[in-house]
Amino acid sequence: MSDAEKRLQVKRSCTRWLSGHGESTMRERLAGLMAMPESEGYPDVYGSGDPVALLERRVAELLGKPAARFVVKGVIAQQAALRTWSDASRIHTVALHPLSHIDSDELGAFERLHPLRAVRLDGGRGFGVAELEAVGEPLGVVTVELPLRNAGFALPDWDDLVAVSHWCRGHGVPLHFDGARLWESAPYYGRPLDEIADLADSLYVSFYKGLNGLAGCALVGSEDFLARATPWLTRHGANVYANYPYALSAIDGLNRYLPRMAAYRDRAESLAHAIAQVRGAGVTTPRTNGFRVFLPGSPDALAGAHLRLAERTGTWLFNRGATTDVPGLTAVEVQVGEATEAIPDDEAARLVADLLDSAEGDR
Amino acid sequence: MSDAEKRLQVKRSCTRWLSGHGESTMRERLAGLMAMPESEGYPDVYGSGDPVALLERRVAELLGKPAARFVVKGVIAQQAALRTWSDASRIHTVALHPLSHIDSDELGAFERLHPLRAVRLDGGRGFGVAELEAVGEPLGVVTVELPLRNAGFALPDWDDLVAVSHWCRGHGVPLHFDGARLWESAPYYGRPLDEIADLADSLYVSFYKGLNGLAGCALVGSEDFLARATPWLTRHGANVYANYPYALSAIDGLNRYLPRMAAYRDRAESLAHAIAQVRGAGVTTPRTNGFRVFLPGSPDALAGAHLRLAERTGTWLFNRGATTDVPGLTAVEVQVGEATEAIPDDEAARLVADLLDSAEGDR
Repeated sequence: MSDAEKRLQVKRSCTRWLSGHGESTMRERLAGLMAMPESEGYPDVYGSGDPVALLERRVAELLGKPAARFVVKGVIAQQAALRTWSDASRIHTVALHPLSHIDSDELGAFERLHPLRAVRLDGGRGFGVAELEAVGEPLGVVTVELPLRNAGFALPDWDDLVAVSHWCRGHGVPLHFDGARLWESAPYYGRPLDEIADLADSLYVSFYKGLNGLAGCALVGSEDFLARATPWLTRHGANVYANYPYALSAIDGLNRYLPRMAAYRDRAESLAHAIAQVRGAGVTTPRTNGFRVFLPGSPDALAGAHLRLAERTGTWLFNRGATTDVPGLTAVEVQVGEATEAIPDDEAARLVADLLDSAEGDR
Repeated sequence: MSDAEKRLQVKRSCTRWLSGHGESTMRERLAGLMAMPESEGYPDVYGSGDPVALLERRVAELLGKPAARFVVKGVIAQQAALRTWSDASRIHTVALHPLSHIDSDELGAFERLHPLRAVRLDGGRGFGVAELEAVGEPLGVVTVELPLRNAGFALPDWDDLVAVSHWCRGHGVPLHFDGARLWESAPYYGRPLDEIADLADSLYVSFYKGLNGLAGCALVGSEDFLARATPWLTRHGANVYANYPYALSAIDGLNRYLPRMAAYRDRAESLAHAIAQVRGAGVTTPRTNGFRVFLPGSPDALAGAHLRLAERTGTWLFNRGATTDVPGLTAVEVQVGEATEAIPDDEAARLVADLLDSAEGDR
């Protein structure tokens, strides 16, 4: 058994988890989907039919856009979006943040599969109009990830986001939102989803992060945009034969978790505050339900200590961490969900302190 | 409601179907997956874990290859295969039949997303060594679709297939099988799957045709080949978060339908023979469970008459047909499955005659 498999096994043997919505067996998830009224009818055929159409209508309505299309994987939806916009303008440059998922986690797919080139804008934990102004070359499309997960779930201030949108419209450059965690971002802005989505010409929203779906996402925009994106979706392999398990689980997620996103964000604030009191620990300021925790020790040492803690307490705090720019400091993530409710702030802080003591004992 | 939606509604209101394994509601399918012993554990994470690993091991073993990788969509698996082989040889040409699915049904994806160019070999309903010899330029990869569906489910003779394999090995050109219906092809050759697969360096096999899975396929070959294909699978968006509903349904399909493929092929022979006796009807000679039926009339006229027949008899014979090279003759498909068993040959022939009478009445 690999280390990763061992960790996953222990994680699933726990009874409490600091992040997420808990662990379910396949049978439990399938039973949940079966119990939904939306599972009564016949399967979609290549995405045509309910419950996919139902999900698409609901997402389009929530985001105030004319149309939404279910896509099995965000990598597909976003490449189709970038290619569609850049083909329309005949300008094959994509402005993005170098920490964005598209640029850092997909093996350069958009540059390797399409005649696209990145223009990397780095204003620290995001970019704004100043960085766009400084580019000095034509841009085919601008994309903003909300929140920028690899920068500790960073969200731009509302005024800065509006300014980027205005800049793009003023310069005739399409703006695409990578909204993998858009559902989780709205509470920070205190604005409805459609007001946020209105700033962009197209969006991708994910169903399997905060919404706890099985997989999949939606590509959202005008009817014309989606019609032009469709051949690229096809070429990428988006036309999966039956999509209903994913669509059902996404509808369930919209019913169950979307209304709780503001509460999850509030909980992230108090939880981050409590963990920040632990000697040696630091946190990013949560703007969504997610934040980063910085802990002394190497990822290996912390993972080893954490595994023992999880076996001893039945509580899973963090997945394996990553090194940071600061030597000897590791970053782990918290993403508040339903499971987090079972662990009070003070207990979470005590467990983190316990973890650090144990990790220190290893040295 | 569109014509296609209306047809699907009537199809699902029928009680008998000449092709396929019958129509199930979402809830029925989900209940079937839940009842499988393989649904007891926890979900895979990005394809890692059972039942995906179980399925991959079983497919690799059936095909006698070192490794298999579940992929949500064949379009993804096959482009990754073609790119991997052509990158290895630095020769970016793909030899294929112009009727192959890759060339005719995917909007030229492999040429639009990759620096690949087709070399189209047309030897009628397939191609052989003669066509390969005639190319006169270096080939990066040769791909053969088994059976060639758009040519009426045509299968090459065994000796011709062996000769193509030997030619490829002798010339150092990788051979890839598009085995969307490989499960259905083995009975014609009267050889085990691994003996057929041994002719190719890599294969794609589908889970949602004869096996009746929800969706998905496997890419099969050496460990090294799959390792080199993995970055391309990732860039195409193959890393779906949870794959178990598809994997479960594929395992169920291997259990339930793979052992019946020879019987389905035999049935296709007797059924095609019976339908060929109907005045005006013609058939292709079945080599798999599938064959084409040629009927006088336009696709529109036949679809209209067929819809009335289906409503009247509760029996669904054919999906909408396509025009042929012969004016006034339409081609429809039959693919024998579990549902076909409920309709005896002579009754199928009577229903086809009934359909032609009714369509003629429309003129």
